[in-house]
Amino acid sequence: MSEALRVLEHVARQEKLTLSYQQADVGGAGIDRHGQALPASTLKVCEQSDAILFGSVGGPKWEKLPPAQQPERASLLPLRKHFTLFANIRPGLLYRELTDASPLKTERIPDGIDIVCIRELTGGIYFGKKETTTLADGDVQAMDTMVYRKSEIERILATAVTTARARKKKLCSIDKANVLETSVLWRKTVIDYIAKNAPDLELSHMYVDNAAMQLARNPNQFDVFVTENMFGDILSDEMAVICGSLGMLSSASLGTGKNSLGLPFGLYEPAGGTAPDIAGKGIANPCAQILSAALMLRYSFGLGEIATRIEAAVKKTVTSGTRTGDIAFGRPAVGTKAMADAIIANL
Amino acid sequence: MSEALRVLEHVARQEKLTLSYQQADVGGAGIDRHGQALPASTLKVCEQSDAILFGSVGGPKWEKLPPAQQPERASLLPLRKHFTLFANIRPGLLYRELTDASPLKTERIPDGIDIVCIRELTGGIYFGKKETTTLADGDVQAMDTMVYRKSEIERILATAVTTARARKKKLCSIDKANVLETSVLWRKTVIDYIAKNAPDLELSHMYVDNAAMQLARNPNQFDVFVTENMFGDILSDEMAVICGSLGMLSSASLGTGKNSLGLPFGLYEPAGGTAPDIAGKGIANPCAQILSAALMLRYSFGLGEIATRIEAAVKKTVTSGTRTGDIAFGRPAVGTKAMADAIIANL
Ligand SMILES: CC(C)[C@H](C(=O)O)[C@@H](O)C(=O)O
Ligand SMILES: CC(C)[C@H](C(=O)O)[C@@H](O)C(=O)O
Repeated sequence: MSEALRVLEHVARQEKLTLSYQQADVGGAGIDRHGQALPASTLKVCEQSDAILFGSVGGPKWEKLPPAQQPERASLLPLRKHFTLFANIRPGLLYRELTDASPLKTERIPDGIDIVCIRELTGGIYFGKKETTTLADGDVQAMDTMVYRKSEIERILATAVTTARARKKKLCSIDKANVLETSVLWRKTVIDYIAKNAPDLELSHMYVDNAAMQLARNPNQFDVFVTENMFGDILSDEMAVICGSLGMLSSASLGTGKNSLGLPFGLYEPAGGTAPDIAGKGIANPCAQILSAALMLRYSFGLGEIATRIEAAVKKTVTSGTRTGDIAFGRPAVGTKAMADAIIANL
Repeated sequence: MSEALRVLEHVARQEKLTLSYQQADVGGAGIDRHGQALPASTLKVCEQSDAILFGSVGGPKWEKLPPAQQPERASLLPLRKHFTLFANIRPGLLYRELTDASPLKTERIPDGIDIVCIRELTGGIYFGKKETTTLADGDVQAMDTMVYRKSEIERILATAVTTARARKKKLCSIDKANVLETSVLWRKTVIDYIAKNAPDLELSHMYVDNAAMQLARNPNQFDVFVTENMFGDILSDEMAVICGSLGMLSSASLGTGKNSLGLPFGLYEPAGGTAPDIAGKGIANPCAQILSAALMLRYSFGLGEIATRIEAAVKKTVTSGTRTGDIAFGRPAVGTKAMADAIIANL
């Protein structure tokens, strides 16, 4: 995070922009210092801001907590709900020079990977009614409900359309319409919405089980894919691993709300976690956090050109050989700070 | 299917066993000839049998049908429900000699892949209450319910324990206990059940999104994994593609019911579909169907030794170089019949 802030401060200086930010505890730090993964004081800071640049949370220290109280879950889900961060945009990007980092055979991804996952983030089974009951016969029954409204599907489609239009105009919608009622509504809404609002896009549909296959078989057959919350959770992580290093992957979660600039309020975070095994050693890859900051500039501050400059600087740095251990393939690696220095030098 | 039947007839002759079977229409053939993907006459034949050896169903001809009426879905789901086929066992097997067929880099799977997915098959969101309603404000809302009972989780665990005990005694349970109530019950039931009934097993838990990563990163870190219906649908397909050729993958779906031999009634089918692009050309890989027949002999007929002989013959045939096009890697390939001939010769 501190390297991402350095990059932001650097571009702010270059562009003569004023950068104003506050740091607030969340996740494990929230639990330890305020007794809550998402302290009220932190939420207040977020509310007063135009965007959230989120670090990584969680670690072995809080592993013994019940799953629902773990730092990541207990901070992210309430944040998503509170700010209705319904659109999660995750670039699945692997530079050609880094194909060695992917578990996939290089001949399957000769030019690397360049796709985008759009995940619905505030609906579906994550936020539907849940309940556990003991039945008359002594058996215990648990229930979750997956709910989608047409209007919720349409608003994520608007994001998908914008994303697809800025790329290859190819959109794949992923569902399980042969089993789920929510997916039947999803598919019908997609068909109607695209016919009406984006007939210029090439639209396809795929079942989620097949998508899990196709991602690992030939990821670049996708350009932009859009899917509901739970499927997106699974597929975006599969996509991430196929892209080789979590240390390179960013994400944006956009809300319905507008910030003081009239642009979407959003939360920006790396795709990976805290990597406890290397925490504090100064060797973590800062690129994911830096690229998340770039997405923030693009979506929440309307600074797309600066975002593109940062992305180009990261790419130039990495592809010219300055790399942290996770992407060095045994060759000499630099530390977190030196990596950020090199990126800043390329800015 | 006809090659699998030839293999069965061959081993029956060798072992002086009487093999009695009937063929019945299902899927597209059911729709075309009886107006239903699962005709009543077919269901009756199944009821009178000790096991079902299921072929592949579906194809472009029925693609225009609504998703819920498509041949695969409209035959498999009612069969699973009718016979309470709650335990889906899918070996994820890739011979070392075939690692070229996997999308994964060979250095990640130097000895091939050998894992097993156990998927709960009659519960969860597949069979919970579903409904679509138009709301007062004109919006449309769809709902699916994911339901699990403790007893349903325990019975799939019994299958998982048996499977794990016959292998490396390592079981990984996959859930989303940080979000789903059903997963909280799932995880608690797993912990209690294994502590009480199988403390000899090495048990671990993993979130489904992480599992989707780990499968593609390093599949052999698993030995046996067990999960609920929807997660199993997605993960088993991801596992299948990582194993290189769907043409090599079999599956067993075991019921609560016992057949006339006092063994589990079951349905056995290849992991792949009909492969319409090569249908009728006589070049499809018969191994998946033959291996499914072997699983049938093992689970529903108590003929584990014969099953092992068939599996060994398939392995010997393939690894010694007789291969259909899907696993020939550009070298000369044999047709479906010649492949089965070679397997029979190795029996
Ligand atoms: C922490 C968890 C609740 C969360 C999710 O499931 O959405 C995470 O996996 C993610 O993808 O951001
Ligand atoms: C056809 C479909 C309903 C089925 C499922 O989702 O279970 C299939 O994908 C499978 O895995 O056997």
